[in-house]
Amino acid sequence: MKADLLFTGSELLTGLVENTNAGYLSRRLGGAGIQVREQRVLPDDLQAIAAAMERSLCLSDVVIVTGGLGPTDDDLTREAAAYCLRRKLRPDARQMQILEFFFQERGLEMPEANRKQALVIEGSTPLDNPRGTAPGALIETEGKLLFLLPGPPLEMQPMFEEAVLPLLRGRARDDFFLVKTLKCTGLGESQLAAAVKELGRWDNPSLSLAARGMEVHLQLKAQGETAAVEELIAAASHRLRRALRDYLYGEDEDTLAAVVSRLLIESGQTLALAESCSGGLLADMITDVPGSSRFFKGGLVAYSLAAKEASLGLDRTFLEREGAVSEWTARAMASAARRKLDATIGVGITGVAGPDTDLDGRPLGLVYIAIDNKDRVSCREMHFRGIRRTVKIRAAQAALTMLWRRVRPEV
Amino acid sequence: MKADLLFTGSELLTGLVENTNAGYLSRRLGGAGIQVREQRVLPDDLQAIAAAMERSLCLSDVVIVTGGLGPTDDDLTREAAAYCLRRKLRPDARQMQILEFFFQERGLEMPEANRKQALVIEGSTPLDNPRGTAPGALIETEGKLLFLLPGPPLEMQPMFEEAVLPLLRGRARDDFFLVKTLKCTGLGESQLAAAVKELGRWDNPSLSLAARGMEVHLQLKAQGETAAVEELIAAASHRLRRALRDYLYGEDEDTLAAVVSRLLIESGQTLALAESCSGGLLADMITDVPGSSRFFKGGLVAYSLAAKEASLGLDRTFLEREGAVSEWTARAMASAARRKLDATIGVGITGVAGPDTDLDGRPLGLVYIAIDNKDRVSCREMHFRGIRRTVKIRAAQAALTMLWRRVRPEV
Repeated sequence: MKADLLFTGSELLTGLVENTNAGYLSRRLGGAGIQVREQRVLPDDLQAIAAAMERSLCLSDVVIVTGGLGPTDDDLTREAAAYCLRRKLRPDARQMQILEFFFQERGLEMPEANRKQALVIEGSTPLDNPRGTAPGALIETEGKLLFLLPGPPLEMQPMFEEAVLPLLRGRARDDFFLVKTLKCTGLGESQLAAAVKELGRWDNPSLSLAARGMEVHLQLKAQGETAAVEELIAAASHRLRRALRDYLYGEDEDTLAAVVSRLLIESGQTLALAESCSGGLLADMITDVPGSSRFFKGGLVAYSLAAKEASLGLDRTFLEREGAVSEWTARAMASAARRKLDATIGVGITGVAGPDTDLDGRPLGLVYIAIDNKDRVSCREMHFRGIRRTVKIRAAQAALTMLWRRVRPEV
Repeated sequence: MKADLLFTGSELLTGLVENTNAGYLSRRLGGAGIQVREQRVLPDDLQAIAAAMERSLCLSDVVIVTGGLGPTDDDLTREAAAYCLRRKLRPDARQMQILEFFFQERGLEMPEANRKQALVIEGSTPLDNPRGTAPGALIETEGKLLFLLPGPPLEMQPMFEEAVLPLLRGRARDDFFLVKTLKCTGLGESQLAAAVKELGRWDNPSLSLAARGMEVHLQLKAQGETAAVEELIAAASHRLRRALRDYLYGEDEDTLAAVVSRLLIESGQTLALAESCSGGLLADMITDVPGSSRFFKGGLVAYSLAAKEASLGLDRTFLEREGAVSEWTARAMASAARRKLDATIGVGITGVAGPDTDLDGRPLGLVYIAIDNKDRVSCREMHFRGIRRTVKIRAAQAALTMLWRRVRPEV
């Protein structure tokens, strides 16, 4: 089954708003057996939107349009769909009630402009939007499905998960196209490419690789009958998991921070950080995981010698002898964080994020990462290329990778 | 002048790779007077790419294609362009030399597959790519311009800036379409909409608004002759700057963190942070700014009572009496961070990021932010809606907004 994705909104064409719906919908559809044939971003123009709908309804089984369901004059998706399908738009009493209730509940009067959101295309099924005023719609036409969804991700995503995906899952049978992503860390893209090549040919499922900072994501794609495809993907995943067990940490929506967090909670460990060049990014990644307060004691972002001295209690003479960026400083930071914040594991990161070499002449991209888990302190020296943000991301991901290796169960 | 953007690559259609090129190119073109008419993401299919090129060359003056210039079998952009334009692909001696040198310099042997990257479309101008093996190309055809650029942003962006944009700037004359973004913080989207409505009608330039966390970005768009359009945008920017001076902090590629950093450096201030619910995100945002080590002393991510006690030196009895999330705790955190890290300004953030209410029953999204600049400690109580990541972003942005107001020169 094939799908076309159409995104309306001039603000996407000027780059005012990033089109995060494209990646989200593509990943979710691929995981449900539906192949995205094309994505298009269209201006707020009735003729252009209607023409694109018509073409997509010819070429694909499912067409999903996001955006353009609001109350303003440049919201034209409903009108374009009616025009394209030669159907009428009619005011709907139930939709009007829902709209009125939405405003009432918030103690607001409904603006006149919003009345047009209660217009419904003949023969369509409205899709409820509890998070906003724009109802969605499903229209069946000549065996094809046209979905109109709101543009804001916080409204679009729940509607897609609750009303669109279950319906599509039920229909995707023959010509099933399944995508699964496996996520690796701790080895480069070319090493990984060589490793998977040794496992044999990758035709069905096919295999693609993409580097994301220190991680490499593998994507399996298989096509055919539902049961056969699911089996192909499962067998290939199993083969990759076994061959790449030192690198493969998760799949699809997993993040390394979430996987590490789960392992820390399961093993009853607690974590403290001392970050220099990563500047708080590692703490930010860990505290994005719901429940991180169960194991994360806290972190110190020591961006100056004075901060390393005052907040970590490191000795100024020691720091001046070893330098702010050195193996021994990283080790001392890890241990000081662990002791100071009473955790079972301490991590220390120090390096040169750029844009220039540091005061002691150490090169841009040089980073030391140390882990202290009471029994043992280990440290790695890394050299990262790239701009400031890239060095920060790689340093934080490398630290997570070392943590993952330290806390995951022996295999 | 109008442009179509075509992005090739099945990995964009499965969501393995995010299409960051779309936003980047759209913003840069809009700032140079060129209107993006449509964006399309196409599969690695020669016929599909060639058909899209043909259509776009009819409808727009400029067509930019990214991706598909690599050495593998599914890199088909060069071939599709040759097919679409009915021109020959010929091996080019200079391109072959450049390729051979690229590998030589890295001590590698050139794989056989890469030879096809030295194929050049008859009558095209190759565009050098010092950062990778895929050369770009410019093809003029019937008064239209077709650019082929590599897919990876780190190769695409410099080629676009150096070879594409200067050429387009020289040509964009009549039918000039200029976009300018102005960035506001500290007021909501609907308040801002009301404020700009009071300033009069917005036809040319037109005005769009988009909320980004606590910020609202305004976008001006004007169309017409070059000089007239530039004047229209300048006059409108000036009017908005004056009317919104308490909210408007920057434009286009400015970030609030960078603006605050510049003000701190100019005024000779130094900064220390104590973050709880924002979990290091504010430190991360500040350390993304090059040169932040000149004013940023460091931060403490106090995610547990023990951390607030140990690293900030706060009194346990005080914390237990006031609660981890309270105005007085935020104030104490700001002051402790400032004193402990010897800075002139301290910021304290404490709140409930979710997913649940905190142990003391305080509601999800309640955040206290305090600033201590020696003379004065102020604190604000905020209530944010949204998931964990949203609350973190809003808390960090709100703190930056308070900092901006404290350090910017009186107007």
